[in-house]
Amino acid sequence: MAARTLVESGASVVVLEARDRVGGRTRTVELGSERVDLGGQWIGPTQDRIRTLADELGVATFPQHEQGRNVRASRGRVATYRNAPPVSMLSRLELRRALRHLDERARSVPTSAPWRAENAVEWDGMTVEMWKRDALRTAGARDLVDVMVRSIFAAEPSELSFLFFLFYLNAGGGLERLSSVTGGAQERGFIGGAQQISERLAEGLGQRVQLETPVQSIEQHDGGVRVRTARGDCIGRHVIVAIPPTLAGRIEYTPPLPALRDQLTQRMPMGSVIKCVAVYPEPFWRRSGLSGQAWSDRDPIRLAFDACSHDGSQAALVGFMLGRSAREYCERPEIERREAALQSFARAFGPEARDCSAYADQNWIEERWSGGGYTGLMPPGALTECGEALRRPCGRIHWAGTETATRWVGYMDGALDAGERAANEVVKRLAR
Amino acid sequence: MAARTLVESGASVVVLEARDRVGGRTRTVELGSERVDLGGQWIGPTQDRIRTLADELGVATFPQHEQGRNVRASRGRVATYRNAPPVSMLSRLELRRALRHLDERARSVPTSAPWRAENAVEWDGMTVEMWKRDALRTAGARDLVDVMVRSIFAAEPSELSFLFFLFYLNAGGGLERLSSVTGGAQERGFIGGAQQISERLAEGLGQRVQLETPVQSIEQHDGGVRVRTARGDCIGRHVIVAIPPTLAGRIEYTPPLPALRDQLTQRMPMGSVIKCVAVYPEPFWRRSGLSGQAWSDRDPIRLAFDACSHDGSQAALVGFMLGRSAREYCERPEIERREAALQSFARAFGPEARDCSAYADQNWIEERWSGGGYTGLMPPGALTECGEALRRPCGRIHWAGTETATRWVGYMDGALDAGERAANEVVKRLAR
Repeated sequence: MAARTLVESGASVVVLEARDRVGGRTRTVELGSERVDLGGQWIGPTQDRIRTLADELGVATFPQHEQGRNVRASRGRVATYRNAPPVSMLSRLELRRALRHLDERARSVPTSAPWRAENAVEWDGMTVEMWKRDALRTAGARDLVDVMVRSIFAAEPSELSFLFFLFYLNAGGGLERLSSVTGGAQERGFIGGAQQISERLAEGLGQRVQLETPVQSIEQHDGGVRVRTARGDCIGRHVIVAIPPTLAGRIEYTPPLPALRDQLTQRMPMGSVIKCVAVYPEPFWRRSGLSGQAWSDRDPIRLAFDACSHDGSQAALVGFMLGRSAREYCERPEIERREAALQSFARAFGPEARDCSAYADQNWIEERWSGGGYTGLMPPGALTECGEALRRPCGRIHWAGTETATRWVGYMDGALDAGERAANEVVKRLAR
Repeated sequence: MAARTLVESGASVVVLEARDRVGGRTRTVELGSERVDLGGQWIGPTQDRIRTLADELGVATFPQHEQGRNVRASRGRVATYRNAPPVSMLSRLELRRALRHLDERARSVPTSAPWRAENAVEWDGMTVEMWKRDALRTAGARDLVDVMVRSIFAAEPSELSFLFFLFYLNAGGGLERLSSVTGGAQERGFIGGAQQISERLAEGLGQRVQLETPVQSIEQHDGGVRVRTARGDCIGRHVIVAIPPTLAGRIEYTPPLPALRDQLTQRMPMGSVIKCVAVYPEPFWRRSGLSGQAWSDRDPIRLAFDACSHDGSQAALVGFMLGRSAREYCERPEIERREAALQSFARAFGPEARDCSAYADQNWIEERWSGGGYTGLMPPGALTECGEALRRPCGRIHWAGTETATRWVGYMDGALDAGERAANEVVKRLAR
């Protein structure tokens, strides 16, 4: 997106891509007879940038299937439900009150400068886990918060700063929007997969995109930058780094990055996710009146959705190992991950889930050029101590990547926001 | 230490040192007429490894001066005191009870596997800040905890996992020992400076030590390792990486590090410290009955000590910017740091502190080969989620550095412990 914006402004651009493909944290693969997403997948209301771009590029969307009863496996018991999860009335009331209060606080956090929130220091001294323990007394409500936090962040509540959590919620329009299918961030998938967006952007850039060219170092001089790769150097007037901060910290910089920026790159680890897709002869769960949505607090797959193709020609389920469960499986071979995923699906949807006709997964934690997923996260203290360094250009180096967005941080829409903003920074400086 | 242990076992060793000097986080410089420490400085009781090694290498120690009244600047007021800091009786009682309770809990954390502590998950879900707010009601007691945490960790209480905090306390024998001069970790300095330890170790290793040779990548093969540097490659059967985990994450590995190890390197940032030394014609503070020790919650220098040479031939003060105050100054020029340091000293010890005859400081945050200081820290969630990866060898790669110690983690003594342990791992495997 940054490259496209710059090219449109008349600038000369080279895109250095570490992988042998474009798409970053989106990746679409052939599985069975269809293309399925092993990375970023959905878009939803208010994500106007990605929606507009998809339209323009001719990538169509379709609604995520959610008709039927959902499954929840909690503390060893499996139950199905239609609207609200099967917890006690007390838990439900408690949670509703807490979430309303949470969204109020989230709205008080300025997304362009979360460290300026009135209670920034207090909230950045807490984990989400501590907020949960303080705000909620019932096990039912606490469990639901765990489920939501893992689903949205691919991390445990103990890993997240409460201020970062509120900032992230606000950037996406609130917890309800982030966690919903219809009306929320999981509303629609792309026919043919999400990676097409990047692929078509890259087509438009043509020879400017150089694959398999990881950047080793960035040198700044008076008049410009020199970017070194194993395939030779690139020189230019400015450079935009559009990778997660933790990976940006692994590039060598001459002169070194400002001290605070370096500290930031040490303080924004990636979440932990393994995404698993299983293809079946039939959408057997739909026959039993199930939606394909499932949450679990013990199974390796913490979260599942129906992943049938848009026209129903292929039946599939998608599941996520998240946070602790992803880390438990991140060094195991695919066959064990597959077994764990199918077992999880079987517990939620019935024994037929064991007999898939095809299976694929993506262990984002071992992806060298992602370092985890979905996104960079902040533990307590990082945002108030180093947040200012997140977007501030360092000489001729500008920062993009969804972590630097101010709307829909962590999502495809945020990545576009960040790319455009970084490109505009450069356009302005080139015009001087 | 690792190299020395290996050489003693008969192994052939090369030490690749990124800097143009040995010593890492110790650094001794000429200032005025004496050598002063701008990095690691003190040792104390139960630090038997460093004490024994210093004796053996002929580096003598001398007691840290602490006679006289201490200074405490709190909430804008400066006061002096002899034994206990000038807080209300209520604060003192509250703090004493809390610290006793804290040390009990610290002792329940096994230093070789803190994630196995009975309350590991609960404690790793909290920050030290949250513990403080929960356990202490009086402002006086809370302020003293801030002072102690900053002094021991070079970080704010909001940045630290409570489990990591307890682990670290236990590894050093408790909070009292870590924060004391006589009887504690600041008991004795080295005549001629702490860097001599590494220098003399290096002398013993002779040509095996190659300076200015940062490691770029480590490749593992069936029979051994290849370590690439800009000055050429080294091949060997095993490699010991003795740098902080966050910096170890910046080396390129082929094959990539195990996924959990990579996540760990994203989750162990360095603390933030700038160490400042000012030399004076006279130890004027001693004349006023002051010890040279000072604590402050607002001045850039959070902590100060007398830094006169062992024989009294040169008068000096040493001060630390820590955590937030270090980050506030980490991108400013030396002249501003100097001004801030001298102002802080003047507030604590009187206007004569402004007229130093020599000044030097070390901004460890901008030190590329340290990335901060004193040591690698863990935010909530890191120890329970990734702690196992801290010391576990990855094929032929073994991990040293004070962060991997089980006694006196973060101290010189811990670095020796870790180096010896890693070397012994290799010796065992070489003997097979």
